[in-house]
Amino acid sequence: MEKITVVKIGGNVIDDPAVLKRFIADFAAMPGPKILVHGGGKVATRLAERLELKVQMVDGRRITDKGTLDVVTMVYAGLVNKQLVASLQAEGCNALGMSGADGNAVTARRRAPQPIDYGFVGDIEKVDSRLLGRLLEAGVTPVFCAIMHDGQGTLLNCNADSVASAIALGAAQIAPAELVFCFEKSGVLRDPDDETTLIREITAESYAALKAEGVVSKGMIPKIENALKAVANGVRSVTIKHSDNLSNDTGTVIR
Amino acid sequence: MEKITVVKIGGNVIDDPAVLKRFIADFAAMPGPKILVHGGGKVATRLAERLELKVQMVDGRRITDKGTLDVVTMVYAGLVNKQLVASLQAEGCNALGMSGADGNAVTARRRAPQPIDYGFVGDIEKVDSRLLGRLLEAGVTPVFCAIMHDGQGTLLNCNADSVASAIALGAAQIAPAELVFCFEKSGVLRDPDDETTLIREITAESYAALKAEGVVSKGMIPKIENALKAVANGVRSVTIKHSDNLSNDTGTVIR
Repeated sequence: MEKITVVKIGGNVIDDPAVLKRFIADFAAMPGPKILVHGGGKVATRLAERLELKVQMVDGRRITDKGTLDVVTMVYAGLVNKQLVASLQAEGCNALGMSGADGNAVTARRRAPQPIDYGFVGDIEKVDSRLLGRLLEAGVTPVFCAIMHDGQGTLLNCNADSVASAIALGAAQIAPAELVFCFEKSGVLRDPDDETTLIREITAESYAALKAEGVVSKGMIPKIENALKAVANGVRSVTIKHSDNLSNDTGTVIR
Repeated sequence: MEKITVVKIGGNVIDDPAVLKRFIADFAAMPGPKILVHGGGKVATRLAERLELKVQMVDGRRITDKGTLDVVTMVYAGLVNKQLVASLQAEGCNALGMSGADGNAVTARRRAPQPIDYGFVGDIEKVDSRLLGRLLEAGVTPVFCAIMHDGQGTLLNCNADSVASAIALGAAQIAPAELVFCFEKSGVLRDPDDETTLIREITAESYAALKAEGVVSKGMIPKIENALKAVANGVRSVTIKHSDNLSNDTGTVIR
Protein backbone atom coordinates (compact mmCIF):
# COMPACT_ATOMS: atom_id res chain seq x y z
CA MET A 1 0.00 0.00 0.00
CA GLU A 2 1.15 3.58 -0.55
CA LYS A 3 2.15 5.85 2.31
CA ILE A 4 -0.39 6.11 5.15
CA THR A 5 -0.87 9.48 6.86
CA VAL A 6 -2.14 9.59 10.44
CA VAL A 7 -3.36 13.04 11.50
CA LYS A 8 -4.19 14.02 15.08
CA ILE A 9 -6.26 17.06 16.00
CA GLY A 10 -6.67 18.39 19.50
CA GLY A 11 -9.26 20.40 21.32
CA ASN A 12 -8.13 23.75 19.94
CA VAL A 13 -9.04 22.65 16.42
CA ILE A 14 -12.31 21.02 17.49
CA ASP A 15 -13.47 23.97 19.58
CA ASP A 16 -13.16 26.62 16.84
CA PRO A 17 -15.83 26.12 14.13
CA ALA A 18 -14.00 28.17 11.45
CA VAL A 19 -10.66 26.42 12.09
CA LEU A 20 -12.37 23.03 12.14
CA LYS A 21 -14.21 23.72 8.86
CA ARG A 22 -10.95 24.55 7.08
CA PHE A 23 -9.26 21.50 8.56
CA ILE A 24 -12.12 19.17 7.51
CA ALA A 25 -11.94 20.43 3.90
CA ASP A 26 -8.13 20.08 3.78
CA PHE A 27 -8.14 16.64 5.42
CA ALA A 28 -10.88 15.38 3.08
CA ALA A 29 -8.87 16.62 0.07
CA MET A 30 -5.64 14.89 1.21
CA PRO A 31 -4.75 12.13 -1.25
CA GLY A 32 -3.83 8.57 -0.26
CA PRO A 33 -4.80 6.36 2.67
CA LYS A 34 -5.27 8.33 5.87
CA ILE A 35 -6.50 8.04 9.46
CA LEU A 36 -7.78 10.79 11.75
CA VAL A 37 -7.36 10.72 15.54
CA HIS A 38 -9.13 13.34 17.61
CA GLY A 39 -9.11 14.62 21.16
CA GLY A 40 -12.11 16.03 22.88
CA GLY A 41 -12.08 19.76 23.31
CA LYS A 42 -13.92 21.70 25.92
CA VAL A 43 -17.31 20.05 25.35
CA ALA A 44 -16.54 17.25 27.80
CA THR A 45 -15.38 19.67 30.49
CA ARG A 46 -18.43 21.88 30.01
CA LEU A 47 -20.76 18.89 30.10
CA ALA A 48 -19.12 17.56 33.26
CA GLU A 49 -19.56 21.00 34.82
CA ARG A 50 -23.22 21.21 33.82
CA LEU A 51 -23.77 17.76 35.31
CA GLU A 52 -21.95 18.97 38.41
CA LEU A 53 -19.57 16.04 38.34
CA LYS A 54 -16.80 16.63 40.79
CA VAL A 55 -13.49 16.88 38.96
CA GLN A 56 -10.94 15.05 41.08
CA MET A 57 -7.36 16.02 40.44
CA VAL A 58 -4.25 14.30 41.80
CA ASP A 59 -0.85 15.85 41.00
CA GLY A 60 -2.52 17.99 38.35
CA ARG A 61 -4.03 14.97 36.61
CA ARG A 62 -7.72 14.30 36.32
CA ILE A 63 -9.16 11.14 37.85
CA THR A 64 -11.54 9.39 35.43
CA ASP A 65 -14.24 8.02 37.71
CA LYS A 66 -17.29 6.19 36.25
CA GLY A 67 -19.27 9.40 35.76
CA THR A 68 -16.36 11.08 33.98
CA LEU A 69 -15.80 8.00 31.81
CA ASP A 70 -19.46 8.13 30.76
CA VAL A 71 -19.14 11.84 29.90
CA VAL A 72 -15.99 11.42 27.81
CA THR A 73 -17.47 8.37 26.07
CA MET A 74 -20.58 10.39 25.22
CA VAL A 75 -18.69 13.44 24.02
CA TYR A 76 -15.63 11.90 22.31
CA ALA A 77 -17.10 8.68 20.87
CA GLY A 78 -20.56 10.18 20.32
CA LEU A 79 -20.89 13.89 19.67
CA VAL A 80 -17.40 14.87 18.45
CA ASN A 81 -16.74 11.66 16.53
CA LYS A 82 -20.08 11.59 14.68
CA GLN A 83 -19.99 15.30 13.85
CA LEU A 84 -16.50 14.85 12.37
CA VAL A 85 -17.60 11.78 10.41
CA ALA A 86 -20.73 13.49 9.04
CA SER A 87 -18.69 16.59 8.06
CA LEU A 88 -16.06 14.48 6.32
CA GLN A 89 -18.73 12.49 4.48
CA ALA A 90 -20.21 15.79 3.27
CA GLU A 91 -16.76 16.59 1.81
CA GLY A 92 -16.61 13.27 -0.01
CA CYS A 93 -14.29 11.52 2.44
CA ASN A 94 -15.56 8.03 3.36
CA ALA A 95 -15.00 8.37 7.10
CA LEU A 96 -15.79 5.62 9.61
CA GLY A 97 -15.85 6.61 13.27
CA MET A 98 -14.25 4.22 15.73
CA SER A 99 -13.34 3.70 19.33
CA GLY A 100 -10.78 1.05 20.18
CA ALA A 101 -13.62 -1.36 20.97
CA ASP A 102 -15.02 -1.18 17.44
CA GLY A 103 -13.73 -4.15 15.50
CA ASN A 104 -11.41 -4.68 18.50
CA ALA A 105 -9.15 -2.18 16.72
CA VAL A 106 -7.14 -1.00 19.73
CA THR A 107 -6.91 -2.56 23.17
CA ALA A 108 -5.63 -0.75 26.23
CA ARG A 109 -4.60 -1.81 29.70
CA ARG A 110 -6.03 -0.04 32.71
CA ARG A 111 -3.28 1.89 34.45
CA ALA A 112 -2.10 0.24 37.65
CA PRO A 113 -3.83 1.74 40.70
CA GLN A 114 -0.46 2.24 42.45
CA PRO A 115 0.80 4.76 43.48
CA ILE A 116 -2.26 6.72 42.29
CA ASP A 117 -5.53 5.26 41.00
CA TYR A 118 -6.44 7.38 37.98
CA GLY A 119 -9.64 5.39 37.45
CA PHE A 120 -10.75 4.36 33.97
CA VAL A 121 -7.55 5.47 32.24
CA GLY A 122 -5.65 3.17 29.94
CA ASP A 123 -2.37 2.82 28.12
CA ILE A 124 -2.38 1.40 24.61
CA GLU A 125 -1.59 -2.28 24.41
CA LYS A 126 -2.23 -3.45 20.85
CA VAL A 127 -3.34 -1.96 17.51
CA ASP A 128 -4.84 -4.31 14.92
CA SER A 129 -2.75 -3.33 11.86
CA ARG A 130 -4.51 -5.87 9.63
CA LEU A 131 -7.90 -4.29 10.35
CA LEU A 132 -6.49 -0.82 9.58
CA GLY A 133 -5.07 -2.18 6.34
CA ARG A 134 -8.37 -3.77 5.29
CA LEU A 135 -10.29 -0.56 5.97
CA LEU A 136 -7.79 1.65 4.14
CA GLU A 137 -7.69 -0.72 1.17
CA ALA A 138 -11.50 -0.50 0.98
CA GLY A 139 -11.16 3.29 0.67
CA VAL A 140 -12.37 3.93 4.22
CA THR A 141 -10.86 6.65 6.43
CA PRO A 142 -10.97 5.54 10.07
CA VAL A 143 -11.69 8.39 12.51
CA PHE A 144 -10.59 7.42 16.01
CA CYS A 145 -11.54 8.96 19.32
CA ALA A 146 -9.30 8.18 22.30
CA ILE A 147 -11.75 5.82 24.04
CA MET A 148 -10.31 2.33 24.00
CA HIS A 149 -11.29 -0.95 25.68
CA ASP A 150 -9.60 -3.67 27.66
CA GLY A 151 -11.24 -6.54 25.76
CA GLN A 152 -13.10 -7.55 28.93
CA GLY A 153 -16.01 -5.13 28.46
CA THR A 154 -14.51 -2.04 30.07
CA LEU A 155 -13.99 1.22 28.18
CA LEU A 156 -10.87 3.22 29.02
CA ASN A 157 -10.02 6.88 28.43
CA CYS A 158 -6.61 7.24 26.79
CA ASN A 159 -4.33 10.10 25.84
CA ALA A 160 -5.14 11.11 22.26
CA ASP A 161 -1.49 11.87 21.40
CA SER A 162 -0.51 8.39 22.55
CA VAL A 163 -3.38 6.87 20.56
CA ALA A 164 -2.17 8.69 17.44
CA SER A 165 1.42 7.47 17.96
CA ALA A 166 0.27 3.89 18.55
CA ILE A 167 -1.93 3.94 15.44
CA ALA A 168 0.90 5.39 13.34
CA LEU A 169 3.18 2.61 14.62
CA GLY A 170 0.45 0.09 13.74
CA ALA A 171 0.13 1.62 10.27
CA ALA A 172 3.92 1.43 9.84
CA GLN A 173 3.59 -2.37 10.06
CA ILE A 174 1.72 -2.44 6.75
CA ALA A 175 3.10 0.54 4.79
CA PRO A 176 5.33 3.62 5.15
CA ALA A 177 3.57 5.81 7.71
CA GLU A 178 3.70 9.49 8.61
CA LEU A 179 2.18 11.13 11.65
CA VAL A 180 0.99 14.74 11.76
CA PHE A 181 0.00 16.56 14.96
CA CYS A 182 -2.19 19.57 14.20
CA PHE A 183 -2.55 22.29 16.79
CA GLU A 184 -2.83 26.07 17.09
CA LYS A 185 0.82 27.00 16.50
CA SER A 186 3.07 26.66 13.46
CA GLY A 187 5.21 24.01 15.12
CA VAL A 188 8.00 23.94 17.68
CA LEU A 189 9.07 27.57 18.22
CA ARG A 190 12.33 28.85 19.70
CA ASP A 191 10.25 31.65 21.18
CA PRO A 192 6.74 30.38 21.97
CA ASP A 193 5.32 33.87 21.31
CA ASP A 194 7.01 34.35 17.95
CA GLU A 195 5.77 32.26 15.01
CA THR A 196 8.81 33.31 12.94
CA THR A 197 11.11 31.29 15.22
CA LEU A 198 9.81 27.99 13.87
CA ILE A 199 12.28 25.13 14.07
CA ARG A 200 11.97 23.30 10.73
CA GLU A 201 13.48 19.99 11.69
CA ILE A 202 14.35 18.08 14.83
CA THR A 203 16.34 14.87 15.06
CA ALA A 204 17.38 12.86 18.11
CA GLU A 205 20.73 14.68 17.98
CA SER A 206 19.42 18.23 17.57
CA TYR A 207 16.75 17.58 20.23
CA ALA A 208 19.39 16.81 22.86
CA ALA A 209 20.96 20.21 22.17
CA LEU A 210 17.60 22.05 22.13
CA LYS A 211 16.65 20.47 25.45
CA ALA A 212 20.02 21.31 27.01
CA GLU A 213 19.66 24.94 25.85
CA GLY A 214 16.18 25.02 27.40
CA VAL A 215 14.68 25.97 24.02
CA VAL A 216 11.98 23.31 24.13
CA SER A 217 9.21 24.40 26.44
CA LYS A 218 7.71 22.13 29.08
CA GLY A 219 4.51 21.19 27.23
CA MET A 220 6.50 20.29 24.12
CA ILE A 221 8.87 17.86 25.83
CA PRO A 222 6.53 14.83 26.00
CA LYS A 223 5.22 15.58 22.47
CA ILE A 224 8.69 15.62 20.95
CA GLU A 225 9.95 12.67 22.96
CA ASN A 226 6.90 10.63 21.87
CA ALA A 227 7.57 11.70 18.29
CA LEU A 228 11.22 10.67 18.48
CA LYS A 229 10.17 7.32 19.91
CA ALA A 230 7.67 6.83 17.06
CA VAL A 231 10.37 7.65 14.51
CA ALA A 232 12.84 5.31 16.20
CA ASN A 233 10.21 2.54 16.02
CA GLY A 234 9.38 2.80 12.34
CA VAL A 235 7.22 5.87 11.68
CA ARG A 236 8.87 7.69 8.78
CA SER A 237 8.34 11.19 10.16
CA VAL A 238 6.28 13.10 12.72
CA THR A 239 5.23 16.64 11.87
CA ILE A 240 3.94 19.19 14.37
CA LYS A 241 2.08 22.01 12.62
CA HIS A 242 -0.84 24.43 12.60
CA SER A 243 -4.07 22.84 11.42
CA ASP A 244 -4.30 25.54 8.72
CA ASN A 245 -1.06 24.20 7.23
CA LEU A 246 -2.18 20.60 6.72
CA SER A 247 -1.81 20.91 2.94
CA ASN A 248 1.54 22.76 2.93
CA ASP A 249 5.03 22.23 4.28
CA THR A 250 5.09 24.70 7.17
CA GLY A 251 5.78 22.91 10.44
CA THR A 252 8.38 21.09 12.49
CA VAL A 253 9.40 17.74 11.06
CA ILE A 254 10.82 15.22 13.49
CA ARG A 255 12.76 12.38 11.89
CA MET B 1 -24.01 -15.53 1.96
CA GLU B 2 -26.03 -17.48 4.51
CA LYS B 3 -29.07 -16.04 6.23
CA ILE B 4 -28.54 -12.63 7.88
CA THR B 5 -30.30 -11.93 11.19
CA VAL B 6 -31.05 -8.32 12.15
CA VAL B 7 -31.94 -7.91 15.84
CA LYS B 8 -33.38 -4.75 17.34
CA ILE B 9 -33.38 -4.01 21.07
CA GLY B 10 -35.25 -1.16 22.67
CA GLY B 11 -34.88 0.88 25.82
CA ASN B 12 -36.41 -1.74 28.10
CA VAL B 13 -33.58 -4.14 27.32
CA ILE B 14 -30.88 -1.47 27.54
CA ASP B 15 -32.11 -0.03 30.84
CA ASP B 16 -32.09 -3.32 32.78
CA PRO B 17 -28.50 -4.50 33.42
CA ALA B 18 -29.46 -8.14 34.14
CA VAL B 19 -31.72 -8.40 31.07
CA LEU B 20 -29.05 -6.71 28.93
CA LYS B 21 -26.33 -9.05 30.17
CA ARG B 22 -28.37 -12.13 29.20
CA PHE B 23 -29.20 -10.61 25.85
CA ILE B 24 -25.54 -9.76 25.09
CA ALA B 25 -24.45 -13.33 25.85
CA ASP B 26 -27.26 -14.82 23.70
CA PHE B 27 -26.68 -12.40 20.82
CA ALA B 28 -22.91 -13.01 20.85
CA ALA B 29 -23.55 -16.78 20.75
CA MET B 30 -25.97 -16.55 17.78
CA PRO B 31 -24.40 -18.26 14.76
CA GLY B 32 -24.21 -16.72 11.29
CA PRO B 33 -23.98 -13.15 10.03
CA LYS B 34 -25.90 -10.72 12.22
CA ILE B 35 -26.55 -7.04 12.81
CA LEU B 36 -27.71 -5.33 16.00
CA VAL B 37 -29.82 -2.15 16.01
CA HIS B 38 -30.45 -0.40 19.30
CA GLY B 39 -32.66 2.32 20.65
CA GLY B 40 -31.69 4.59 23.46
CA GLY B 41 -33.36 3.88 26.74
CA LYS B 42 -33.92 6.32 29.54
CA VAL B 43 -30.33 7.63 29.68
CA ALA B 44 -31.02 10.29 27.03
CA THR B 45 -34.16 11.49 28.79
CA ARG B 46 -32.39 11.61 32.15
CA LEU B 47 -29.44 13.48 30.67
CA ALA B 48 -31.72 15.99 28.94
CA GLU B 49 -33.45 16.53 32.29
CA ARG B 50 -30.17 17.02 34.13
CA LEU B 51 -29.11 19.53 31.48
CA GLU B 52 -32.49 21.21 31.92
CA LEU B 53 -33.21 21.03 28.20
CA LYS B 54 -36.81 21.93 27.59
CA VAL B 55 -38.62 18.97 26.09
CA GLN B 56 -40.91 20.36 23.42
CA MET B 57 -43.80 18.11 22.51
CA VAL B 58 -46.24 18.55 19.63
CA ASP B 59 -49.11 16.07 19.31
CA GLY B 60 -47.36 13.78 21.77
CA ARG B 61 -44.15 13.75 19.71
CA ARG B 62 -40.87 15.13 20.86
CA ILE B 63 -39.24 17.94 18.90
CA THR B 64 -35.55 17.27 18.31
CA ASP B 65 -33.97 20.72 18.58
CA LYS B 66 -30.17 21.13 18.32
CA GLY B 67 -29.63 20.57 22.07
CA THR B 68 -31.71 17.40 22.00
CA LEU B 69 -29.91 16.16 18.87
CA ASP B 70 -26.58 16.62 20.67
CA VAL B 71 -27.87 14.68 23.69
CA VAL B 72 -29.19 11.74 21.66
CA THR B 73 -25.99 11.69 19.57
CA MET B 74 -23.92 11.57 22.76
CA VAL B 75 -26.03 8.91 24.43
CA TYR B 76 -27.02 6.67 21.51
CA ALA B 77 -23.91 6.91 19.28
CA GLY B 78 -21.52 7.34 22.20
CA LEU B 79 -22.38 5.83 25.55
CA VAL B 80 -24.93 3.13 24.66
CA ASN B 81 -23.27 2.12 21.39
CA LYS B 82 -19.75 1.81 22.78
CA GLN B 83 -20.87 -0.01 25.94
CA LEU B 84 -22.73 -2.53 23.76
CA VAL B 85 -19.72 -2.94 21.46
CA ALA B 86 -17.27 -3.41 24.35
CA SER B 87 -19.62 -5.94 26.01
CA LEU B 88 -20.04 -7.90 22.78
CA GLN B 89 -16.28 -7.90 22.19
CA ALA B 90 -15.81 -9.32 25.70
CA GLU B 91 -18.15 -12.18 24.64
CA GLY B 92 -16.09 -12.87 21.53
CA CYS B 93 -18.41 -11.14 19.05
CA ASN B 94 -16.48 -8.85 16.69
CA ALA B 95 -18.86 -5.88 17.00
CA LEU B 96 -18.36 -2.58 15.15
CA GLY B 97 -20.49 0.34 16.31
CA MET B 98 -21.96 2.56 13.64
CA SER B 99 -24.20 5.52 13.01
CA GLY B 100 -25.59 6.03 9.53
CA ALA B 101 -22.78 8.52 8.84
CA ASP B 102 -20.06 5.90 9.41
CA GLY B 103 -19.00 4.56 6.04
CA ASN B 104 -22.04 6.43 4.71
CA ALA B 105 -23.94 3.27 5.67
CA VAL B 106 -27.43 4.79 5.97
CA THR B 107 -28.65 8.16 4.74
CA ALA B 108 -31.83 9.82 5.93
CA ARG B 109 -33.88 12.76 4.76
CA ARG B 110 -34.89 15.43 7.23
CA ARG B 111 -38.64 15.33 7.73
CA ALA B 112 -40.45 18.15 5.95
CA PRO B 113 -41.13 21.06 8.34
CA GLN B 114 -44.82 21.16 7.30
CA PRO B 115 -47.28 20.84 8.97
CA ILE B 116 -45.07 20.41 12.07
CA ASP B 117 -41.31 20.97 12.24
CA TYR B 118 -39.98 18.08 14.30
CA GLY B 119 -36.44 19.43 14.06
CA PHE B 120 -33.50 17.12 13.42
CA VAL B 121 -35.61 14.05 12.75
CA GLY B 122 -35.11 11.96 9.64
CA ASP B 123 -36.69 9.19 7.65
CA ILE B 124 -34.43 6.52 6.14
CA GLU B 125 -33.53 7.10 2.53
CA LYS B 126 -30.88 4.56 1.55
CA VAL B 127 -28.98 1.66 3.12
CA ASP B 128 -25.63 0.64 1.61
CA SER B 129 -26.21 -3.12 1.24
CA ARG B 130 -22.77 -3.68 -0.29
CA LEU B 131 -21.07 -2.18 2.75
CA LEU B 132 -23.16 -4.40 5.06
CA GLY B 133 -22.20 -7.41 2.94
CA ARG B 134 -18.48 -6.58 3.06
CA LEU B 135 -18.54 -6.14 6.84
CA LEU B 136 -20.50 -9.35 7.45
CA GLU B 137 -18.22 -11.33 5.11
CA ALA B 138 -15.24 -10.06 7.11
CA GLY B 139 -16.84 -11.56 10.24
CA VAL B 140 -17.82 -8.17 11.63
CA THR B 141 -21.13 -7.60 13.46
CA PRO B 142 -22.36 -4.04 12.81
CA VAL B 143 -24.05 -2.44 15.83
CA PHE B 144 -26.23 0.47 14.71
CA CYS B 145 -27.66 3.28 16.75
CA ALA B 146 -30.55 5.26 15.22
CA ILE B 147 -28.53 8.41 14.45
CA MET B 148 -28.28 8.81 10.69
CA HIS B 149 -27.04 11.61 8.43
CA ASP B 150 -28.25 13.47 5.37
CA GLY B 151 -24.92 13.26 3.51
CA GLN B 152 -24.59 17.04 3.76
CA GLY B 153 -23.04 17.07 7.23
CA THR B 154 -26.19 17.02 9.35
CA LEU B 155 -26.95 14.23 11.81
CA LEU B 156 -30.59 13.17 12.13
CA ASN B 157 -32.40 11.28 14.87
CA CYS B 158 -34.44 8.40 13.43
CA ASN B 159 -36.88 5.87 14.78
CA ALA B 160 -34.93 2.76 15.78
CA ASP B 161 -37.69 0.37 14.64
CA SER B 162 -37.65 1.99 11.20
CA VAL B 163 -33.84 1.80 11.10
CA ALA B 164 -34.03 -1.92 11.90
CA SER B 165 -36.61 -2.52 9.15
CA ALA B 166 -34.59 -0.52 6.60
CA ILE B 167 -31.39 -2.40 7.48
CA ALA B 168 -33.20 -5.77 7.25
CA LEU B 169 -34.51 -4.75 3.81
CA GLY B 170 -30.97 -3.73 2.83
CA ALA B 171 -29.63 -7.07 4.09
CA ALA B 172 -32.34 -8.87 2.09
CA GLN B 173 -30.71 -7.46 -1.08
CA ILE B 174 -27.63 -9.60 -0.49
CA ALA B 175 -28.94 -12.72 1.32
CA PRO B 176 -32.07 -14.13 2.95
CA ALA B 177 -32.76 -11.85 5.92
CA GLU B 178 -34.73 -12.17 9.13
CA LEU B 179 -35.63 -9.38 11.52
CA VAL B 180 -36.16 -9.86 15.27
CA PHE B 181 -37.61 -7.19 17.55
CA CYS B 182 -36.70 -7.87 21.20
CA PHE B 183 -38.72 -6.23 23.93
CA GLU B 184 -40.11 -6.93 27.38
CA LYS B 185 -43.07 -9.15 26.40
CA SER B 186 -43.24 -12.59 24.82
CA GLY B 187 -44.67 -11.19 21.59
CA VAL B 188 -48.09 -10.03 20.39
CA LEU B 189 -50.58 -11.02 23.09
CA ARG B 190 -54.38 -11.35 22.75
CA ASP B 191 -54.54 -10.04 26.30
CA PRO B 192 -51.63 -7.62 26.95
CA ASP B 193 -51.58 -8.66 30.62
CA ASP B 194 -51.50 -12.39 29.98
CA GLU B 195 -48.32 -13.87 28.54
CA THR B 196 -50.12 -17.17 27.86
CA THR B 197 -52.24 -15.49 25.16
CA LEU B 198 -49.27 -15.21 22.78
CA ILE B 199 -50.20 -15.19 19.10
CA ARG B 200 -47.66 -17.49 17.43
CA GLU B 201 -48.02 -16.29 13.87
CA ILE B 202 -49.45 -13.31 12.02
CA THR B 203 -49.87 -12.97 8.27
CA ALA B 204 -51.35 -10.13 6.24
CA GLU B 205 -54.64 -12.05 6.21
CA SER B 206 -54.81 -12.92 9.91
CA TYR B 207 -53.71 -9.38 10.82
CA ALA B 208 -56.75 -7.87 9.08
CA ALA B 209 -58.99 -10.05 11.26
CA LEU B 210 -57.03 -9.30 14.48
CA LYS B 211 -57.23 -5.57 13.79
CA ALA B 212 -60.97 -5.75 13.02
CA GLU B 213 -61.55 -7.68 16.29
CA GLY B 214 -59.58 -5.00 18.15
CA VAL B 215 -57.17 -7.66 19.44
CA VAL B 216 -54.05 -5.75 18.40
CA SER B 217 -53.40 -2.97 20.83
CA LYS B 218 -52.55 0.57 19.76
CA GLY B 219 -48.80 0.48 20.34
CA MET B 220 -48.53 -2.77 18.39
CA ILE B 221 -50.28 -1.51 15.25
CA PRO B 222 -47.32 0.42 13.74
CA LYS B 223 -44.90 -2.37 14.77
CA ILE B 224 -46.93 -5.07 13.01
CA GLU B 225 -47.72 -2.94 9.98
CA ASN B 226 -44.00 -2.13 9.57
CA ALA B 227 -43.25 -5.83 9.94
CA LEU B 228 -45.82 -6.80 7.30
CA LYS B 229 -44.36 -4.18 4.96
CA ALA B 230 -40.83 -5.54 5.53
CA VAL B 231 -42.08 -9.07 4.77
CA ALA B 232 -43.92 -7.88 1.66
CA ASN B 233 -40.68 -6.24 0.48
CA GLY B 234 -38.39 -9.21 0.84
CA VAL B 235 -37.54 -9.81 4.51
CA ARG B 236 -38.18 -13.53 5.10
CA SER B 237 -39.80 -13.10 8.52
CA VAL B 238 -40.13 -10.62 11.36
CA THR B 239 -40.30 -11.96 14.91
CA ILE B 240 -41.46 -10.00 17.93
CA LYS B 241 -40.26 -11.61 21.15
CA HIS B 242 -38.90 -11.19 24.67
CA SER B 243 -35.17 -10.50 24.73
CA ASP B 244 -34.76 -13.55 27.02
CA ASN B 245 -36.06 -15.73 24.17
CA LEU B 246 -33.54 -14.72 21.53
CA SER B 247 -32.15 -18.25 21.35
CA ASN B 248 -35.48 -20.08 21.35
CA ASP B 249 -38.70 -20.13 19.32
CA THR B 250 -41.09 -18.33 21.67
CA GLY B 251 -42.48 -15.22 20.01
CA THR B 252 -44.81 -13.92 17.33
CA VAL B 253 -43.61 -14.60 13.81
CA ILE B 254 -44.89 -12.31 11.10
CA ARG B 255 -44.54 -13.64 7.56
